Amino acid sequence: MAAGERPTPGGGPDDVRLRGFADRASLDQAQAWVDARSARLGAVEVGVADSVGRIPAAPPAVVRDHPPADRAGEDGYAVRSGETIGATSYSPASFRLQDAAAPLAPGAAALVAAGAPLPAGADALAGFDAAQASGRTLEVIGSVAEGAGIERAGQQLRAGTPLGAMLGPIRPHQAGLLASLGVTRVSVVAHPRVRLLVAGPKPAPGAPGEGDAHRPMLHALVERDGGIVEAAEVRSDLRGALRRAAASGADLVILSGRTGAGPDDEAPLALAEVGALAFHGVALRPGGSAAMGLAGEVPVALLPGDPLACLCAYELLAGRLVRRLGGRDPGLPHPTREAEVGRKIVSAVGLVEACQVRLAAGRVEPLGAPEFGGLAVAARADGFVVVPEALEGYPPGARVTVHLY
Amino acid sequence: MAAGERPTPGGGPDDVRLRGFADRASLDQAQAWVDARSARLGAVEVGVADSVGRIPAAPPAVVRDHPPADRAGEDGYAVRSGETIGATSYSPASFRLQDAAAPLAPGAAALVAAGAPLPAGADALAGFDAAQASGRTLEVIGSVAEGAGIERAGQQLRAGTPLGAMLGPIRPHQAGLLASLGVTRVSVVAHPRVRLLVAGPKPAPGAPGEGDAHRPMLHALVERDGGIVEAAEVRSDLRGALRRAAASGADLVILSGRTGAGPDDEAPLALAEVGALAFHGVALRPGGSAAMGLAGEVPVALLPGDPLACLCAYELLAGRLVRRLGGRDPGLPHPTREAEVGRKIVSAVGLVEACQVRLAAGRVEPLGAPEFGGLAVAARADGFVVVPEALEGYPPGARVTVHLY
Repeated sequence: MAAGERPTPGGGPDDVRLRGFADRASLDQAQAWVDARSARLGAVEVGVADSVGRIPAAPPAVVRDHPPADRAGEDGYAVRSGETIGATSYSPASFRLQDAAAPLAPGAAALVAAGAPLPAGADALAGFDAAQASGRTLEVIGSVAEGAGIERAGQQLRAGTPLGAMLGPIRPHQAGLLASLGVTRVSVVAHPRVRLLVAGPKPAPGAPGEGDAHRPMLHALVERDGGIVEAAEVRSDLRGALRRAAASGADLVILSGRTGAGPDDEAPLALAEVGALAFHGVALRPGGSAAMGLAGEVPVALLPGDPLACLCAYELLAGRLVRRLGGRDPGLPHPTREAEVGRKIVSAVGLVEACQVRLAAGRVEPLGAPEFGGLAVAARADGFVVVPEALEGYPPGARVTVHLY
Repeated sequence: MAAGERPTPGGGPDDVRLRGFADRASLDQAQAWVDARSARLGAVEVGVADSVGRIPAAPPAVVRDHPPADRAGEDGYAVRSGETIGATSYSPASFRLQDAAAPLAPGAAALVAAGAPLPAGADALAGFDAAQASGRTLEVIGSVAEGAGIERAGQQLRAGTPLGAMLGPIRPHQAGLLASLGVTRVSVVAHPRVRLLVAGPKPAPGAPGEGDAHRPMLHALVERDGGIVEAAEVRSDLRGALRRAAASGADLVILSGRTGAGPDDEAPLALAEVGALAFHGVALRPGGSAAMGLAGEVPVALLPGDPLACLCAYELLAGRLVRRLGGRDPGLPHPTREAEVGRKIVSAVGLVEACQVRLAAGRVEPLGAPEFGGLAVAARADGFVVVPEALEGYPPGARVTVHLY
């Protein structure tokens, strides 16, 4: 479209182009829409080594005792504890060393390695600090209590124990536990498949070209949230691109760019034409021009072209969808820190605001809000603070939650 | 080696087998050894999309102003601000619409999209809330200040600004910023290449087999710390495996298992034979039988066979080496939370102890220390608390740092 012309009408009363947003969905409403359309995906089986970071489809069950049988809990000498009573370093108890594979003869002891079964008849283990071998003879210099050094069957885990703590992403040591329990395959929630589209560049004759921030940023964010980016394309034909993306069997389509009130901001209209637009405009800053809807059965998130607004709308809307589809915690995935506000944080009542901040000597300082977006401020921020709709910010001394990058 | 026989002598006075540890390195000494042998690796170039999570070899420099030239900060109409003075909704200022590509004629306005350059002569942008077009005419209903709506060249970043905050792993939005600055290749610290060896199973005749926890756990931990696992093998011939690993050009060799005081705990002896053993035994629980040394020029970490001790020694020693080689923060990489102790944490003076804990209603509760190791307790912990050598634990009410899994 040539500058100086009105866009072709046809968007109807909801077409915000050259008018601006008459009203916007609240962030709560927008998130409720997301939550209603993001049931957790089905399960797939993966090898235990590939299960790290994945979400168990159900808490893994322990099918047998761990350890499966009584065994030496440490390296030492298997003995009959009764035969060590009264032993001291002045009057050691003497034992004849025998092989651990045979039942323990009276007056005999057998060297066993940690993890090995005890010979029949043994009921305790004398550690190396209390027992010294010399040739075929062992001297024990202290009483050994019955059961000492023995790890009982099921002492770590009883068969049938639900591994209830394993609901979030599987940690490296949890995969290690599963492997040591003999588990080889784990049922995990499928990765959400995300189709990533970037609206082709706006016509900006004479402007030095700028690189596309969206693809590397959104790609990495989707992967962080457990999604798989199936395609990442720059498209000018938004309708065709949305149609093809919906037909691709993706779990979510993200289209970034062209959501504002400019003459060429056609993404919401394209979605309305191809499928259904649920809302356009969210009471969120930055990110207020975001829109969501459906193309066929597939949820579509339209994210603003300004990369900071895109980031913010991703984190609070599109990313929430990815996280929910994949069975993850739908909230913001950043580590958080509670901290005191050092310099006043200003926000507008009626908008949820994501304020870029840094931590200076443990106190929260807002970084000048970028008037026109852009990632430069966020790139040097330590994180951000989300100011709720009802507040006009936070005074110095208020305690806030910082979402750390 | 058959049970009941002493291991072949030859380990000398430092051979702990069947004797136990006479003395151990302090964790500080062990970490100092690590730090002296883990200079940051050299730089490699990667595409900006692959730079997420990598460590910049140097803070990326901004080579040009961002934005590179004055441009529309938002969608709107380019005007001469002086021609809007006194405009109100009752007495709007009228403009003739023209194309944005031509210099702005007196009395004219031009529609421009966010990011586009302004026509020559324009010094402000009237937003859609203050301007309404009708046919070829635009009515502006308020004074527009000089410079309004214009994003100046370099307003986000001036050429030469060091991106000093970008020292840690590159975040998705930082990669986005680099891309939007036109950066296509980023110089990052090379991935440490880690050779992973698991000592073959101990002879445990008659014991039901247990799976190998080490490989999946250590593989995932090394990758979490930015390393690349080059091979992960189970080996019984420890000397040969160490020799081959050292010759492979790896940056670090990790061998887990066979570090204790049992008859078949030959890993430290094998390292002493193949290269040099720096220390065997650390004042750390669990993980006290860890050892480190060199095979040729390559650092070698020997981690205990018990998987919980292996985890702990990895986090505090081997992982520190991986993190330092890769230019990361050498400290524990877990998110942390400060919290109050709810139930007493008990520890031994003279040992650094990693205590598995859970957070119950925000308070720290120790989980029963597993007498013989194993990952079952860690798998249901929320994290762990590191109790320093000088303390015998923490009383209820003490504030501690929890390293969260």
